[in-house]
Amino acid sequence: MKKAIILLGCPESPSQTPLAVYATNKLTGMGYKVTVASTPSAKKLLEVSDPEEYYVKNKTDIESCLDGLDQGDYDFLLGFVHKDAAVSYFVTFYHILNTKSLALVFHRDPEKLEYFENTVKENTEAEIASARAYHNPTPLKVRLDRALDKQDMPKKEDKVEDS
Amino acid sequence: MKKAIILLGCPESPSQTPLAVYATNKLTGMGYKVTVASTPSAKKLLEVSDPEEYYVKNKTDIESCLDGLDQGDYDFLLGFVHKDAAVSYFVTFYHILNTKSLALVFHRDPEKLEYFENTVKENTEAEIASARAYHNPTPLKVRLDRALDKQDMPKKEDKVEDS
Repeated sequence: MKKAIILLGCPESPSQTPLAVYATNKLTGMGYKVTVASTPSAKKLLEVSDPEEYYVKNKTDIESCLDGLDQGDYDFLLGFVHKDAAVSYFVTFYHILNTKSLALVFHRDPEKLEYFENTVKENTEAEIASARAYHNPTPLKVRLDRALDKQDMPKKEDKVEDS
Repeated sequence: MKKAIILLGCPESPSQTPLAVYATNKLTGMGYKVTVASTPSAKKLLEVSDPEEYYVKNKTDIESCLDGLDQGDYDFLLGFVHKDAAVSYFVTFYHILNTKSLALVFHRDPEKLEYFENTVKENTEAEIASARAYHNPTPLKVRLDRALDKQDMPKKEDKVEDS
């Protein structure tokens, strides 16, 4: 079974936890075993948000996960990026895993959004799905769906190159 | 079957959607049929957060719900209160339903927290569970659990929750 990892940083945006559950459910439906690696506060929100663990079956601390991480551990990387720390995590995981990767970039402030997008572009060749998002998760959800749907996963092994 | 209604206002806090799912699950486990009445943006977050509708089976628009509301429609009212509009909704639903009620008051700013608590106290005789909460849902979850557990509600099997 193919394995995906989702990275969650500090949960400042009301959209992050709902979208993390949504993405986990979608990737599971695509045939992935999904692990969510997060900061302690993001993990608590996830636990409250899915008390029976219907959606998120595998949760781990992002720091300990990073400590033991090797290339080949996961087949797909999805990073939630809306803070500097989250960009660093994504870039680090990206270079260690060296696999198909998608950065979900979001912020309520358009300048920060652009800055995070550019930082991801300068440091990785990952696919990027981005939108202004805070209260309303729909624009980001639409872009996430589009990015995941076009991956044709998990059958296709080819990496989609962006420039 | 007893019926409970949960009121959700504008989802500014990252804790609101996760706690709404949590409360729905808890009340369902206590034997209630639960309806969540919310603003459109809170509803979207709830849909993304529970894409297979495992937890929240009945969602309605808070304004239309209010239009058709009568005493006796619900046996228990739980209001999420962290904005002026949410206080007004809670007080209004409280006086129409005239039933067992709990206000879950939360805010990151302690002065606003106190102000909302006092407003609820001055206008209703509802029970209040309150805590500072933003990123970390735990203090509020603990108070919600305590308030619900001490209610004399229809009993089903109790669940032990760790956090």
